[in-house]
Amino acid sequence: MPLPGGQSGEIYILERLRKRFHSGADELIVGIGDDAALVKTGTEETLLTMDTLSEGIHFDLSYMTAYQVGFRLAVSNISDIHAMGGIPVWALLSVSISGGRIDGFLDEFLSGLDDALRRYSITLAGGDMTGSRGGITVTLALTGNRGENLARRSGARPGDRIFITGPPGEASLGHELIKRVGLPVRLETGETLDISIPFEKVEPLVRRFLLPELPPVPPGVNSMIDTSDGLMIDLWRLCRESRAGARIYEEALPLTEGMLMVSDAFGIDLMEHVFGGGEDFHLLFTGPEGMEGAFEIGEITEGESIFLVKKDESEEMIKPTGYVHFVSQ
Amino acid sequence: MPLPGGQSGEIYILERLRKRFHSGADELIVGIGDDAALVKTGTEETLLTMDTLSEGIHFDLSYMTAYQVGFRLAVSNISDIHAMGGIPVWALLSVSISGGRIDGFLDEFLSGLDDALRRYSITLAGGDMTGSRGGITVTLALTGNRGENLARRSGARPGDRIFITGPPGEASLGHELIKRVGLPVRLETGETLDISIPFEKVEPLVRRFLLPELPPVPPGVNSMIDTSDGLMIDLWRLCRESRAGARIYEEALPLTEGMLMVSDAFGIDLMEHVFGGGEDFHLLFTGPEGMEGAFEIGEITEGESIFLVKKDESEEMIKPTGYVHFVSQ
Repeated sequence: MPLPGGQSGEIYILERLRKRFHSGADELIVGIGDDAALVKTGTEETLLTMDTLSEGIHFDLSYMTAYQVGFRLAVSNISDIHAMGGIPVWALLSVSISGGRIDGFLDEFLSGLDDALRRYSITLAGGDMTGSRGGITVTLALTGNRGENLARRSGARPGDRIFITGPPGEASLGHELIKRVGLPVRLETGETLDISIPFEKVEPLVRRFLLPELPPVPPGVNSMIDTSDGLMIDLWRLCRESRAGARIYEEALPLTEGMLMVSDAFGIDLMEHVFGGGEDFHLLFTGPEGMEGAFEIGEITEGESIFLVKKDESEEMIKPTGYVHFVSQ
Repeated sequence: MPLPGGQSGEIYILERLRKRFHSGADELIVGIGDDAALVKTGTEETLLTMDTLSEGIHFDLSYMTAYQVGFRLAVSNISDIHAMGGIPVWALLSVSISGGRIDGFLDEFLSGLDDALRRYSITLAGGDMTGSRGGITVTLALTGNRGENLARRSGARPGDRIFITGPPGEASLGHELIKRVGLPVRLETGETLDISIPFEKVEPLVRRFLLPELPPVPPGVNSMIDTSDGLMIDLWRLCRESRAGARIYEEALPLTEGMLMVSDAFGIDLMEHVFGGGEDFHLLFTGPEGMEGAFEIGEITEGESIFLVKKDESEEMIKPTGYVHFVSQ
């Protein structure tokens, strides 16, 4: 399969990292290439993960509040621990920011971070604050306890059904909408948006982008990943680690009325966001038929290709698409 | 005491963080305000720390190599675990960089990071790679095992002697020198510098800045901190956490011939760098008289002020000075 993002893409860099830091350490149970690492700390097993949000790449304060940046930073990390079937416990925070911007950002940012951490009973144990000559960069690291069932990307087997905990593309459509509105919407203080579509239809999309709520962690899965970068690229990653392929049924994809309304009203290509839109922080997992609490959207197959079964029953091989983190300058 | 860096300074932010994230969690043994946090992970105790290097603030690729940035990132974190008397074990890395700069930076950066991590038997377990619209920002988090003796900033008691593992100000003078030369010096490949002072005299300063070697962790200390931001500010932090004061003897401060030569040749105020120069990554600790492997430079006192006893035996109260991380823009 082609490397998403080209030579500078994540997969290429992942390979470089894996090659360089390949370690025989017995204590490294799960290393680079899953949602979180699993390591031995003495007699215990601990999950470790780290995520960064970079201004101009992951957030834009012209249409997001600092509260929402903090909330999202926590959620994106917690989602990684959840995607391993684990329970997050400790957090470390690093903020790089120029001195002149601290007063307009820090307190509100910490408030959003704090609210999300409290929701999941996570304690901030330390971190670093440094200056920045460019935009704001925030990084959170989390440790987690291993849950009863470790959920890896590599556990999918042909015949497994594929599930997702919510409609893919909601956050991405919400993002598009907010960008077009061009102003922050303070959902955290009950603010709404005055547009041509009823707000209650649009609100789940905007909320999924600005203040995403994480789904409960499903028990008994064979493999799992969170959809942080987009349905197809995250499915591709899961298949790649499992050395398997997949078939997705277009008809089975859960779409909401709000998604249809927004794409319609703003002339946005709906399916592009359904397949390629990131930041939903839903869980994509595989397991036996009939698992509850999620939408069954396809099945794991032999081979290493992903096919989309369209509504007319024709099949189309699809390339992984999703959010590409690197921006050439 | 005044807050270094003013309202936007680290201490002020530390207070905001402490206040907001003050936690009653029994499992948080040491929280915000020490070199590293100490937390319970199941039945084990684990040290956690995180440090960020930001381009234009902590490094400048016009006179540092990417290798040196990677090496320093590792060392600055390892030093924090050492300053708690601990043993670093696992690392998480985050790199924010624009796509167009990956090829000129990443491999060499990883090489320097890797060399430093290997030296201390640390394994990179995972992390994140993201784009950047500004400069390069790199963050490393480390977990560590608690050593036999936990060394906190808060353990200093009046009567303790104050020790430092090497000459304060070397790195800072090395930094000044390299800035004036204005070109990278690839010490990692044996490159030397052709200047008016014999290179063997200057080399320890340049090396302390570009490729710092960490001192062995002294056993049996009462309190400890690493000198990442400067002798006086780091001593002030240690005193603050211990609710004590200090007396430092100017005469006892270890200065090298190279330091004198560089300050002389380039018209640099030597003592400004000795007192305020950061990035040495030496260990500053307190304990009983006569501890080995370090220079005894003063003693812990009652009260909360720091005095410098000058060579003429006069005493001067000194304000904490050191590297201020925040830059107004």
